[in-house]
Amino acid sequence: MQLFIKSGVVALIASQFLVSSALAGTEIETLIEMLHQNGTVSDDQYGRLKAELQQNQVIQHQEQQALDAKLVEATKPSDVEVQINGGGLALKTRDGAFTTKLGGRVQLDAAAYSGRPEMGDGTEVRRAYLTLQGTMYEDWGYRLQYNFASTGENGKGILDTYIDYKGFDNVDLRVGHFKEPFTLHEATSDNFVTFMERGLPAAFSTGRRLGVMASHAERDWTWATGVFGESVSNKGGAEDEGWGASTRLTYAPVNEPGQLIHLGVGANFRDTGGAGTSRFKQNPETHIAGINIVDTGTIVDSKDVIKLGAEFATVMGPFSAQAEYINTSVSRDGASDLEFDGWYVESSYFLTGESRQYKQGKFGKPKPNGIVGQGGIGAWQLALRYSNLDLTDGVVDGGEADAVTLGLNWYPTPTLRFTANYVDVLDINGGANDGSEASVVQLRSQWAF
Amino acid sequence: MQLFIKSGVVALIASQFLVSSALAGTEIETLIEMLHQNGTVSDDQYGRLKAELQQNQVIQHQEQQALDAKLVEATKPSDVEVQINGGGLALKTRDGAFTTKLGGRVQLDAAAYSGRPEMGDGTEVRRAYLTLQGTMYEDWGYRLQYNFASTGENGKGILDTYIDYKGFDNVDLRVGHFKEPFTLHEATSDNFVTFMERGLPAAFSTGRRLGVMASHAERDWTWATGVFGESVSNKGGAEDEGWGASTRLTYAPVNEPGQLIHLGVGANFRDTGGAGTSRFKQNPETHIAGINIVDTGTIVDSKDVIKLGAEFATVMGPFSAQAEYINTSVSRDGASDLEFDGWYVESSYFLTGESRQYKQGKFGKPKPNGIVGQGGIGAWQLALRYSNLDLTDGVVDGGEADAVTLGLNWYPTPTLRFTANYVDVLDINGGANDGSEASVVQLRSQWAF
Amino acid sequence: MQLFIKSGVVALIASQFLVSSALAGTEIETLIEMLHQNGTVSDDQYGRLKAELQQNQVIQHQEQQALDAKLVEATKPSDVEVQINGGGLALKTRDGAFTTKLGGRVQLDAAAYSGRPEMGDGTEVRRAYLTLQGTMYEDWGYRLQYNFASTGENGKGILDTYIDYKGFDNVDLRVGHFKEPFTLHEATSDNFVTFMERGLPAAFSTGRRLGVMASHAERDWTWATGVFGESVSNKGGAEDEGWGASTRLTYAPVNEPGQLIHLGVGANFRDTGGAGTSRFKQNPETHIAGINIVDTGTIVDSKDVIKLGAEFATVMGPFSAQAEYINTSVSRDGASDLEFDGWYVESSYFLTGESRQYKQGKFGKPKPNGIVGQGGIGAWQLALRYSNLDLTDGVVDGGEADAVTLGLNWYPTPTLRFTANYVDVLDINGGANDGSEASVVQLRSQWAF
Repeated sequence: MQLFIKSGVVALIASQFLVSSALAGTEIETLIEMLHQNGTVSDDQYGRLKAELQQNQVIQHQEQQALDAKLVEATKPSDVEVQINGGGLALKTRDGAFTTKLGGRVQLDAAAYSGRPEMGDGTEVRRAYLTLQGTMYEDWGYRLQYNFASTGENGKGILDTYIDYKGFDNVDLRVGHFKEPFTLHEATSDNFVTFMERGLPAAFSTGRRLGVMASHAERDWTWATGVFGESVSNKGGAEDEGWGASTRLTYAPVNEPGQLIHLGVGANFRDTGGAGTSRFKQNPETHIAGINIVDTGTIVDSKDVIKLGAEFATVMGPFSAQAEYINTSVSRDGASDLEFDGWYVESSYFLTGESRQYKQGKFGKPKPNGIVGQGGIGAWQLALRYSNLDLTDGVVDGGEADAVTLGLNWYPTPTLRFTANYVDVLDINGGANDGSEASVVQLRSQWAF
Repeated sequence: MQLFIKSGVVALIASQFLVSSALAGTEIETLIEMLHQNGTVSDDQYGRLKAELQQNQVIQHQEQQALDAKLVEATKPSDVEVQINGGGLALKTRDGAFTTKLGGRVQLDAAAYSGRPEMGDGTEVRRAYLTLQGTMYEDWGYRLQYNFASTGENGKGILDTYIDYKGFDNVDLRVGHFKEPFTLHEATSDNFVTFMERGLPAAFSTGRRLGVMASHAERDWTWATGVFGESVSNKGGAEDEGWGASTRLTYAPVNEPGQLIHLGVGANFRDTGGAGTSRFKQNPETHIAGINIVDTGTIVDSKDVIKLGAEFATVMGPFSAQAEYINTSVSRDGASDLEFDGWYVESSYFLTGESRQYKQGKFGKPKPNGIVGQGGIGAWQLALRYSNLDLTDGVVDGGEADAVTLGLNWYPTPTLRFTANYVDVLDINGGANDGSEASVVQLRSQWAF
Repeated sequence: MQLFIKSGVVALIASQFLVSSALAGTEIETLIEMLHQNGTVSDDQYGRLKAELQQNQVIQHQEQQALDAKLVEATKPSDVEVQINGGGLALKTRDGAFTTKLGGRVQLDAAAYSGRPEMGDGTEVRRAYLTLQGTMYEDWGYRLQYNFASTGENGKGILDTYIDYKGFDNVDLRVGHFKEPFTLHEATSDNFVTFMERGLPAAFSTGRRLGVMASHAERDWTWATGVFGESVSNKGGAEDEGWGASTRLTYAPVNEPGQLIHLGVGANFRDTGGAGTSRFKQNPETHIAGINIVDTGTIVDSKDVIKLGAEFATVMGPFSAQAEYINTSVSRDGASDLEFDGWYVESSYFLTGESRQYKQGKFGKPKPNGIVGQGGIGAWQLALRYSNLDLTDGVVDGGEADAVTLGLNWYPTPTLRFTANYVDVLDINGGANDGSEASVVQLRSQWAF
């Protein structure tokens, strides 16, 4: 799709620009006629004048056409629109059939720890993403996203990597590596979750896996259901991989700008495959030290895992609240089944008056009322969360933890975020850290687009 | 190279737009002359009219010049063309001296296995590439390509990484990390090989190494020859690296759209350097499980390895056939030399009438006759391959394998490909898997540009 | 910021294009008046002529306005400028408030070694960077740079990764992962240092770490000071990370194109954190073999490390000289303190007459007088360096080394560099390689923008 428009389109546009060829006045013709009638000019003179007039009219008409053609050429729109005002690079063909977008995200963290277990103060690049995504031939989409700060077991940082088909009316199809549809806090990008880390029930996150998904979103409700293999970090071998299925439904009975009630449910099933193990563990809502406060250890003889989730969220102007409950049961061969669960409740308030942005089952990018550098002070948000996670059941003593987190977010521009979090682990019951109490002060600087 | 054109170019373009300044008719001048001759207007009146006429002509001329200048400015071409219709991002300066292209490629696979050896069903991101390439100062080229799905030993996914010089008439020069010139199936991008994986003789692939190459391509023939060190994954140390040389010649006595006969030969030499070892192994034309069915194990005392290849390919409308034979001999110190070989024959047929695209010694991107979403059904291709690989010689019992593969390719758009392959390993003779038979059903979803 | 200009701006521009509506001559009106006065045309005829004239003037005026509007639309500047002439991709909004730049860098090396210690001949991709950087909302900047050729311990290649704030008059702020401000040869990009590798005192390099920095640069002087945690490769855990602070001041009493005297000092402090160790080691100004000729080994009980540096550089037309001295002292608990140091002196001369480019405390990209492919031969530079590094003090016998390096640089275009270096290690005193002498011939091909 070049910058040069096709000839068929030129013809269409040309017709609306056609300026009449009457630039030179007709009054001269009228005058000549009168003077001839009056006898002021002779027949011979009249003939010569009319011939010259006619010839000049032909020339004028040709010149006018040439001018019109130039104007059509000059005012035709470019075929590719280029935008960089979001911080990255976004291109779109005039007809919208093709788009290409290059984006990125960096989160820079620092943390200081107190209490037990011992955790080392420090800094880290929490996330560093590049994303290339686009639309092809109108109905097809693609996305490749990579985390350059990956600390995964085998150094692989592949995140969203998929192909979309959007050519059907009532269902979108996706194949590739992407998040299983489950829970509100996973559906919401880490750029826009209220705190630096998701709450303790993130122990039950399903993450990204290779699979196929069907989904549909209307203004007030969404559904998505998919079948998934393992994540991209799985390394093959002689054993069959695990597989699973996941479904999420959301409904927003109130859904106006600044006014929201969101309800959601999700169910996630996973067959553990040839490995036959499961494990759940969680850090105290901080990533730098990388130390878990509760941990089931590897649960052998795990046949399959079923997770169920319930979601609630509301927005009332600058105020927002959100809560989720997740129950996880592990079916075992030759051993009793296990059941774990967790929940969190959080609320937040924009001191500067903004509302949280919501669209089709998840929260999105805040829009500061004023931008720093353009006379504003950005958006300032205060937040509080209480989380609980219970990883103890039967013979498995993973421990139960409660934590409260106080947060302050500053969005000086739509692309920047600075966050301070204070996490207080109130209590750990059972497990290796039974009776420990820990707290964290942590800071994040983020750019994302 | 900004969007604003240089003044020298403006002047050139201006001359072709110069509209004559005769927009206002000359008949008024003629009429005035006549009326003066007739005595209808007095000498005084005639003088005033002539003066006004002259003044107006000057004004008209100035206005015409101003208009012409605006039109020249308005219709000048932009200095950088932007294209995104291929799916990625391609830019080119008007003079072609500079280009920049950002592309990508993702291949998403799933496989289910039967038979022996045991291989685990599963999924994987087979390849996830980003490529930045371009032209600089007309004669120079560069390319940087990275595989984010790399599972290499030390996590390095650097692929093509080189500098080109194209300023000579009869030879192009290249320095960097790129494929040694050897065999047709290696020269053809994995985006466009007929099956999901290359055939069993891929055990003898030379892959990418750091080196320098001279090459030249005419319409019907190509030659390329280079000297190479090790691949980018080599880690230095006290031992000298290995080195080698590679040459490939191709000739197409028939080379018209839809009609092709391709012939090729290649020779590859490698000194094993300080390590002094070699090894050849191969999976059953499937990558997910990552299990080899034939394997020489490490061959110590390997001094050097010489590979010879012969290529044949033909296109007859929608039908295409292709065959290669590769012979590999290992010279050893204090032990007898070894000789291995392999071959494959494949054929394919486009049900929708397209022909395989060929250019300068390799096959390229198919062009569907109809595009899904624009009223077409894409390109559909059926394919069949028979491969043989013999890794048994002398004391080395790597095993010999035969496999037949049935494939179906669907290209809904030029940038998308969905492939289903059924691989049947007919027979394994010798080696660790002697007598085993295995089969695979595997699927791939691919976007690439 | 789309390509389509806002209406307010259109109005402003429109006024300067307004061509007078006098395209059709006024002489016809004068003639009509005269003929009426003369009685040649009757009152009735005169009335009709005047009416027609007036109507035509209205039409002309409207047409002229339509034409002016088209011209305004056609000649309005695009909102986003696109440049690719540097080799990569650079975009800027018209108001400069947003920029996005995608750049890259590849260095391809080969080396052949002689003497002792034994080092293996070979090749490598020394560096392969992609960089995404930009400006947002005028005052904010970001940068994400990744080395795809990283051979770091845990495969992480994150380099510059930061957020800038430039909204204050006298100080710029930066948070993220970037080079600590210390020494001239670290401040200068590896694209533009005179030799393939920095001299022996690079053993004291501070490298990139996560931190915050305040800095300011005027034409002739700069200051920068920051507080830093560890590098991005640090992995968390129970132990506190190390931390440090660094400051650099530079002043250029002579600072004209082709004429420079640069003076600089730097100080760097580091608390070794929970680990409590330090180590200094260095290869013989070559990277491929990866073998160190001097090495203190791990120094336990290291409490903190203080480094002090002094810088001098001069440019006199095509000639340039540069020298640095670095002193490093290690404070130890329960053991005597240690002191190491190193220095280098280098000079270079552009055979083709160019001068080294200097700006605000560091050297930058050379500008060849002639470009290959545009009738020039590029820039050719000869260079010589002498380096010393002493890692022996007290009980630590790391060894002392002296090396001399001869270099030839060819810049055929501003984006390309080919370098040949001969390094001769004159002498190693003490340490594991006591008495050894080694030499290296190494080549580099580089593209960078």
